[in-house]
Amino acid sequence: MLRRSLVVSAPGKVILHGEHAVVHGKVALATALNLRTFLRMTPRHDGKISLQLPNLGSRFNWEAADLQPLLAAFSVELPDAQPPSTEQVEKLKEFAGDDNGHEAVHHVATAAFLYLYLNVASKCGFLPTVDILVWSELPTGAGLGSSAAYSVCLAGALLSGCGAISFPLQEGQVVARWTEEELDTINRLAFRGEQVIHGNPSGVDNAVSTWGGALRYFSGKISSLKSVPTLRILLTNTKVPRSTKILVARVKDRLLKFPTIMEPVLTSIDAISRECEGILEAMAHDPSQEHYSMLEELVDINQHLLNGIGVGHPLLDRVCQVASSHGLHSKLTGAGGGGCAITLLPPDTAPSVVEGAIRDLGSCGFECWETDIGALGISAHSLPSLKTEVQKVLKGS
Amino acid sequence: MLRRSLVVSAPGKVILHGEHAVVHGKVALATALNLRTFLRMTPRHDGKISLQLPNLGSRFNWEAADLQPLLAAFSVELPDAQPPSTEQVEKLKEFAGDDNGHEAVHHVATAAFLYLYLNVASKCGFLPTVDILVWSELPTGAGLGSSAAYSVCLAGALLSGCGAISFPLQEGQVVARWTEEELDTINRLAFRGEQVIHGNPSGVDNAVSTWGGALRYFSGKISSLKSVPTLRILLTNTKVPRSTKILVARVKDRLLKFPTIMEPVLTSIDAISRECEGILEAMAHDPSQEHYSMLEELVDINQHLLNGIGVGHPLLDRVCQVASSHGLHSKLTGAGGGGCAITLLPPDTAPSVVEGAIRDLGSCGFECWETDIGALGISAHSLPSLKTEVQKVLKGS
Repeated sequence: MLRRSLVVSAPGKVILHGEHAVVHGKVALATALNLRTFLRMTPRHDGKISLQLPNLGSRFNWEAADLQPLLAAFSVELPDAQPPSTEQVEKLKEFAGDDNGHEAVHHVATAAFLYLYLNVASKCGFLPTVDILVWSELPTGAGLGSSAAYSVCLAGALLSGCGAISFPLQEGQVVARWTEEELDTINRLAFRGEQVIHGNPSGVDNAVSTWGGALRYFSGKISSLKSVPTLRILLTNTKVPRSTKILVARVKDRLLKFPTIMEPVLTSIDAISRECEGILEAMAHDPSQEHYSMLEELVDINQHLLNGIGVGHPLLDRVCQVASSHGLHSKLTGAGGGGCAITLLPPDTAPSVVEGAIRDLGSCGFECWETDIGALGISAHSLPSLKTEVQKVLKGS
Repeated sequence: MLRRSLVVSAPGKVILHGEHAVVHGKVALATALNLRTFLRMTPRHDGKISLQLPNLGSRFNWEAADLQPLLAAFSVELPDAQPPSTEQVEKLKEFAGDDNGHEAVHHVATAAFLYLYLNVASKCGFLPTVDILVWSELPTGAGLGSSAAYSVCLAGALLSGCGAISFPLQEGQVVARWTEEELDTINRLAFRGEQVIHGNPSGVDNAVSTWGGALRYFSGKISSLKSVPTLRILLTNTKVPRSTKILVARVKDRLLKFPTIMEPVLTSIDAISRECEGILEAMAHDPSQEHYSMLEELVDINQHLLNGIGVGHPLLDRVCQVASSHGLHSKLTGAGGGGCAITLLPPDTAPSVVEGAIRDLGSCGFECWETDIGALGISAHSLPSLKTEVQKVLKGS
């Protein structure tokens, strides 16, 4: 069915405000991070399916005929989709070569691919024979939604490739997006890929990667902010490894130990998310210097409160101090205790300031990207319109 | 009436928790700081009164006959004392030599002395001719209650010297304290000294200097904590000058700008003060390692919240980081924005840790004292029982 090669990309995510508080019933704001995962899908005519993951140095090849027997087990209609069963996931991991029980990242990635592929194939009634290459600007395991961007790219490409949804890019266009209804179909399928990878994901990461912009997450409900500006940021990875599970438990422990102290802090973080939501929606219509100053103030306050609930780290403080020495404002994003921080770059930030901050953050041993939040969700691209580096990778050269 | 020389001392104060929040109707805990002001009063028989303030390099001498005309203006009975009138204060400053309108610290100190002296003299019906020397371990203007310790020492010495209250030190004793009723008399008079110096003080500083231990301040009411342990601390002065007025205004501005965010933070600080109060009272009976750990956790949380309300300073963060690198926990105390920080030293802190922290804080250019909070309030001393350094100063040698 697929006649020509297609290229899609999907963004990562950062939590702007509300990390941890969201676990305790407060509002969180997640925004699309313009570090993207790219996918190129090319038809082949030799009865084979291949998956290349250059970030992992992995390449898998299957005969369509070998996948045929698995098809029956995955023939589930999408709208009423059940989460993947443990048996299904185990079967796929086994098929993907996970014979020693290790959840090696490329076996999980392969299992998610196979799950999505078989679902779409079952929906379409045939096994499309394609080369798929997925490459990402996102570091993995850094809380930046790399697995969701992967699932969203796969869902968009596979659904478009087999004709379940359109492929929106017209001749001569460089970028195009799907209809709201099609995005909903992509998001639902991508969520199932996330379930294969994470077991019990919130659905926020795939939603923000699908729709882009910013999302509000509250009491298990996800809703898009009507319109949000794109904000320039520095994303800094302290490279301090951390366990989200341990950090969530730490906050819970402190909440149980000092409820009268910690409850109001969570209430304050909730108010920061709500205030920020209002500012972002106001900025989309008429952004002003005052809006940026308020965003910076909220970032500062939340960083202190996150330290107060016990999820800071000396190296996250270091990021904040280094950025502050250049007049910039930062907070941790995600689980904290290490991991990443975001630094706002208002439009009037001088290039020398940005360069200085990146240089100084780099000298601390941190990895630092200049990028945007509030980015486009999954998009279809013409290959030549992409950055040379991305083109080269997608061409497998 | 005074037959022999007498020596008294009174402590400074630090706010343990609740600074700034107290301005918005929350609880604050103030504790007596064992950096003390010492006063020696010696009878003389030449009709003269002298006041020496070696910290300021000042010495004043008056003929009792020259003070006699002022007496009538200050004959106010203590229990129903009115605050000093502007006219009274101006008259005293003029008398003390403040002819160029500058509120130089030694003119204010002299005016407070004269006010207290004339009050007591009026109560006793004569002008005691004495040498008074007041020297303090406390830096002035650092928010450590040095003016209150000065007023409390003067009130205690003058009231005891003229027989309005007893002098509690018995032959052979090294230290003694007054009865509760006498302390109340000292505190009331000292408050009026504070009014001469500060105009509209809260009364917390003189109360904590009089009673020692720890006090709770809430909705304008001051009450002593029943029993509190003495806690070892490092007191670090960043030497960053700051204006309490500007910092109080900054918090108010942020509260008006982001009420839903800032109100819960103040509520959380209030809960910290109340939690700390409970821990201190429990510790007085049966202190445990767990109590110290909880105090440290509260100190950490409050430091972050104080940063969150906007009264931090990079050099206060530096104090916290340096102390933290030695496993110690710190917070700003008082107005913030510079000024002082306290670092808890649990009993099991190794001497090498304390030495290391003092050395590293010193290398940052900070002034650092190893001292206690929860110290004794105003006390009467035998001169030979005091540290040699203090004895030397009090002997004027």
